Amino acid sequence: MSTRRKKIYEGHGKILYEGPEPGTLVQYFKDDASAYNNAKRAVLEGKGVLNNRISEYFMTRLNTIGVQNHFIRRLNLREQLIRELEIIPLQVVVRNAAAGSLSQRFGLPEGQPLPRSIIEFYLKDEKLGNPMVTEEHITAFNWASTQEIDDMMALSLRVNDFLNGAFGAVGISLIDFRVEFGRLWENDFSRVVLADEISPDNCRLWDTQTREKLDLDRFRRDLGDAIEGYAEIARRLGIMKEMPTVIQGGLH
Amino acid sequence: MSTRRKKIYEGHGKILYEGPEPGTLVQYFKDDASAYNNAKRAVLEGKGVLNNRISEYFMTRLNTIGVQNHFIRRLNLREQLIRELEIIPLQVVVRNAAAGSLSQRFGLPEGQPLPRSIIEFYLKDEKLGNPMVTEEHITAFNWASTQEIDDMMALSLRVNDFLNGAFGAVGISLIDFRVEFGRLWENDFSRVVLADEISPDNCRLWDTQTREKLDLDRFRRDLGDAIEGYAEIARRLGIMKEMPTVIQGGLH
Repeated sequence: MSTRRKKIYEGHGKILYEGPEPGTLVQYFKDDASAYNNAKRAVLEGKGVLNNRISEYFMTRLNTIGVQNHFIRRLNLREQLIRELEIIPLQVVVRNAAAGSLSQRFGLPEGQPLPRSIIEFYLKDEKLGNPMVTEEHITAFNWASTQEIDDMMALSLRVNDFLNGAFGAVGISLIDFRVEFGRLWENDFSRVVLADEISPDNCRLWDTQTREKLDLDRFRRDLGDAIEGYAEIARRLGIMKEMPTVIQGGLH
Repeated sequence: MSTRRKKIYEGHGKILYEGPEPGTLVQYFKDDASAYNNAKRAVLEGKGVLNNRISEYFMTRLNTIGVQNHFIRRLNLREQLIRELEIIPLQVVVRNAAAGSLSQRFGLPEGQPLPRSIIEFYLKDEKLGNPMVTEEHITAFNWASTQEIDDMMALSLRVNDFLNGAFGAVGISLIDFRVEFGRLWENDFSRVVLADEISPDNCRLWDTQTREKLDLDRFRRDLGDAIEGYAEIARRLGIMKEMPTVIQGGLH
């Protein structure tokens, strides 16, 4: 089925195909996992199916509270229909507690709450190792305008509030997450719109009680079956009904 | 002479002693050079004397155009009297062309002009390798306020304009430079004031014609006698009259 469509882009975890109508794309979720700037790779069977459902869950609900995003509807187990955007070449990271590179950079123990949520921007450029960038770099090199930076920050904080609410309600702590944005053009005007996915691939999610990691860090750091963590998140969010056969059957 | 005074702080290139009056310090310029987060070190005879004079030259002139700074007056060959400030734990880097870590980070050839001048902040913490930080980090961790960031950026751009004028007039291109700021308290209010030094230790200065490096990069990258570059800068700025004996005699 996928082979006849025109492939627009292939990343580590997803493929984008031409959509059925102009201005749409099909986002296909792969089982491929990668970490450390692609130095560590594996296939985690069932990951794509879980991420497709988890991201659908959040994108749908974010749309209803007015955080506009590219999600239109889920098509099948691994695919969703999305709006085509002009992607802004930045990754936006929102951090509620220290972890990963921020812990290393400032010598802070992982899990230590930050004085307030911190937003960081990274350039989407794998050859350069996705370096952290500042507003000065972003505006000087014209990766985004000052207004777009403000919009991305405001939207990221709304997403953070919503995700803190959703995960907190099911006993999961949102340590940090990464999102991407794009421009949705209408006539000669563009709006900043949430893109990519919201899944355990780009969130750090810890069980609030046990501090057990339920996200991609399980894979990055060899902390046990990563898919068990993803499935636990889907189960707690109540989107696990059709999951067991998928997880066990290893659909593609 | 120095031994009886109370040492307040010793850095790689300078020592701060208690000053003759409250609210003052004596800034002593050493000949010690260091690079790569102190991994490479040497004594460059005469460097302290040259930097004391070059920094006096710029700080005096910046004061006259209203860029308030900590410099009061030069005391002798290696020392200057300065105002005591509450140092803000940040290094501010202004870049006019790509070089050093920015070249590496974004894969830009050294010397390539930037679309516009770019300001960067680095945390003054040698144990952490002086990591680059953003406004988000600075305000969240309370290293400086939003107003202080704005003040530092505005002052840095004024310094950049002035230095571009001064160096350009004597055939030297200002690639980038690093400055520090402090708080000058008066009653319960503080102002942001330029601190530290302005010298070839923290500027990248290239001969505009030949592109020869005249700054600390000569030492960092083993490009020849660093002090010759420093002396050339002092000579072109017309502050070289008493210098030759110093350079040759190696005063301490």
